[in-house]
Amino acid sequence: MKRIFNFNAGPSTMPTEVLLKAKEELLDFKNSGISIMESSHRAKLYDEVHNETIELIRELYQVPEDFHILFLQGGASLQFAMVPMNLYKGGVAEFADTGSWSAKAVKEAQIQNIKYKIVASSKDSGYDHIPKDIPFSDEADYAYITSNNTIYGTQYKTFPKTKSPLIIDASSDIFSYPVEWENIGMMFAGAQKNAGPSGVTIVIIRKDLTQRVKENVPTILRYKTHAEKNSLYNTPNTFGIYMLNLMMKWLKSKGGVEGIAKINEKKAKILYDVIDKSEGFYKGHARKDSRSLMNVTFNIKNKDKELEEKLVKLAEENEMIGLKGHRSVGGLRASIYNAMPIEGVKKLAELMEEFAKEHR
Amino acid sequence: MKRIFNFNAGPSTMPTEVLLKAKEELLDFKNSGISIMESSHRAKLYDEVHNETIELIRELYQVPEDFHILFLQGGASLQFAMVPMNLYKGGVAEFADTGSWSAKAVKEAQIQNIKYKIVASSKDSGYDHIPKDIPFSDEADYAYITSNNTIYGTQYKTFPKTKSPLIIDASSDIFSYPVEWENIGMMFAGAQKNAGPSGVTIVIIRKDLTQRVKENVPTILRYKTHAEKNSLYNTPNTFGIYMLNLMMKWLKSKGGVEGIAKINEKKAKILYDVIDKSEGFYKGHARKDSRSLMNVTFNIKNKDKELEEKLVKLAEENEMIGLKGHRSVGGLRASIYNAMPIEGVKKLAELMEEFAKEHR
Repeated sequence: MKRIFNFNAGPSTMPTEVLLKAKEELLDFKNSGISIMESSHRAKLYDEVHNETIELIRELYQVPEDFHILFLQGGASLQFAMVPMNLYKGGVAEFADTGSWSAKAVKEAQIQNIKYKIVASSKDSGYDHIPKDIPFSDEADYAYITSNNTIYGTQYKTFPKTKSPLIIDASSDIFSYPVEWENIGMMFAGAQKNAGPSGVTIVIIRKDLTQRVKENVPTILRYKTHAEKNSLYNTPNTFGIYMLNLMMKWLKSKGGVEGIAKINEKKAKILYDVIDKSEGFYKGHARKDSRSLMNVTFNIKNKDKELEEKLVKLAEENEMIGLKGHRSVGGLRASIYNAMPIEGVKKLAELMEEFAKEHR
Repeated sequence: MKRIFNFNAGPSTMPTEVLLKAKEELLDFKNSGISIMESSHRAKLYDEVHNETIELIRELYQVPEDFHILFLQGGASLQFAMVPMNLYKGGVAEFADTGSWSAKAVKEAQIQNIKYKIVASSKDSGYDHIPKDIPFSDEADYAYITSNNTIYGTQYKTFPKTKSPLIIDASSDIFSYPVEWENIGMMFAGAQKNAGPSGVTIVIIRKDLTQRVKENVPTILRYKTHAEKNSLYNTPNTFGIYMLNLMMKWLKSKGGVEGIAKINEKKAKILYDVIDKSEGFYKGHARKDSRSLMNVTFNIKNKDKELEEKLVKLAEENEMIGLKGHRSVGGLRASIYNAMPIEGVKKLAELMEEFAKEHR
C-alpha cells in the first residue's frame, strides 16, 4: 500500500489510522453484518454513531450546552444562503471581507436583497491580511467573518469581540485550536478540510438563534428544523458523519484541540521559518501578523512561474502533491491541516531549502 | 466477515462486491498513494471518477443528450424546495398525491406560496394505489409525481403522458427499470436506496428547464449553477459519487437497467406469491395493480401486532433485518432494491411460508 503526503486545500489528507479503521469495518460494522453505509439512519446501529459524534464534538471543542451541534449537507456555499435566510431580522448584516469566501457570503446576502454593510476589507492589498479592530457595530443582526482564508493563507489570531452574534465560517480551521464561545452566534464548516470527507457541513448554533427564522423559508433550509430533529429530519450523509466520528476520536488521541493546536503551530513554524530564512528566495503572501497555520501561501522571488512550477513538479516526484497555489494568488500553497503529519511538513521544508540553495 | 440480509428502506443494502472493491482501494486509489476521499475535487484523480459516473448513468439509463446529469446534496427534501424555486413560472404546478413524499413536496410548494393544484390523490384509501388516468392539464408549469412510494409500497407501472414537463421523484426506484424520457422534464433521487450511500442527490434535468430560474434564487439552489459547472460549483460529496460509480459498474455487470428490471420482477413475484397464496394469512397493503417491485408492504391477518412483531423478530434471528413496516402502515415492509440478492428474497419467502403454516 502506497501512501504519499497530500497538501491539497480540500478535500484533503486524512490520518492513515482513521482510513485503516474505516477499511477494517467497511463491510461489517461492529459485528452487525452490514456496513455503516447500509444502516438505516433510524436504526440503533447508526444512531449511536450519530450521537457519539455530537458528544465528541461537544467535549473536544468545549461547546456550551446552549448551542446545537448539527450535521447538514451542501457545504459552506449553502450556508452563505442559509445564514441570511435564518438570521436576518430586518436590520443590518455586517461583514468583514477577507477573501473569496467572505465575498461569496456577501454576494448571497445581496441576492436575498437584505441590508448589509462591509465594515472592513483587505481586498485592496490582495487579501494579504486580517484587518485590525474591525468596526462592527453593536446593533447588527449579526456580524460575519471567515476565520481562515484558504486561498490567501490568512487567519484571525483572535475573534472580534462583537456585541451582535458573531457568525464564523470556519471551514478551513475548525477543530484546529480551542475556541471561546462567548460572543459566537454560530460557527459552520464543510468537513472536508479539517474534519472528514466532503458532503457533511458542521453547524454549531446558539439555540435561541434558530427561532429567528420566518415561515416562508423552506423547511429543509431552517436550522430550526434540523435542531428539532437532531439532524435526522431527512437522511443525513451517514457515512460522512461516521468518518467525522473517527476523526474526532483521532483528534482526542492527539490531546484534543489543545494538543493539535500546539502541533499545528510547530508545523506552520517549520515552513514559515524556511520562507523567512530564504533571503528573499521565498516570499509569503500573507503579512506576518495574519499568517495562517493551515494554509502556507508563498511565491518564489519575482514570482518566477517557471521555478514555481519546477518546485511543484519536484515535490510530486518526491511524493508530495497538491502544492500548486490557487489561481488568484499563484505560487505555491501548502495546506497543513490537523491530519498532515509533521513528517510531511519536514520533508517539504527540506525540499524547499535544497531548492532555494540550488536556484538562489 | 459476517454479512446478513438487510431489508431496510434506505439507506439500504449494497452489493458485497461493491463494498469489497471500495475496501480494497480505500487507502490507495489507483496507486495514487491517497484515498479517493482525500482527493481534491479539482484533481484529475477525482475528475475521472466524476465524469465516468455521469457517462455510465447516461449510457445505462439511456439519458438523452438534452438532459444534464447533476450530483447535488440535501436529498429529496431539498428537491421539494428547489423544484418550485427553479421551475415555477407564475402559472400552476400540478401534483399527484400518492403518499407522504408527494405530500411533503406539496407542502414546500405551499410554503413558497406558489399556485398549485392536487389533480389526483389516493389519500382517502390509505395511499394503497396509484390513481389511473391522472387529469394533468396541458398548460401547467410542471406536473409532479412520486414514481415509487416507499412507505405504502405502491409504484407507477407507466408514467403519465403529460404535455407539461413531468417532474419525477424517483428516490426509491431510480435505475430499477428502463425509462422513456419523452415527456420527462426532470427526475431526481437521493442515492441511498438504489444507487449508493446517502448524501448524494442525482438530478437529471432537461437542459432548457435550468434557464427558468429567477435571479433572486440563491446561487447554490439553482440547477443552472450546477449545470454550468458540471456539479463542481462547490465541493460535491466526492466519496458518495465514487460509490455511485461503483454501483453503476455493478449495475452494468447485471445487464444494466434492462437486466436488473427482470431480476426485480422475479424477486417481487416471489414475495407477492407468498402473500397471495397464504389464504388470507398475509394481506398486501397495496392494491395488486399498484404493487411496488421495490417495497413489499403487508400485514398479518387482522393486523395482529403480536404476530407481526414475532415475525420481525424471527427474521432477525435468521439474519434478516429491517422488516418492520413504517408507522403509517404498520405490519411489515421488505425493501428489495436492486442490490438485494435473490437469495435474500427466497430466504425471507421461506420463513414467511413456514410462519404462516405454523400460525394460520
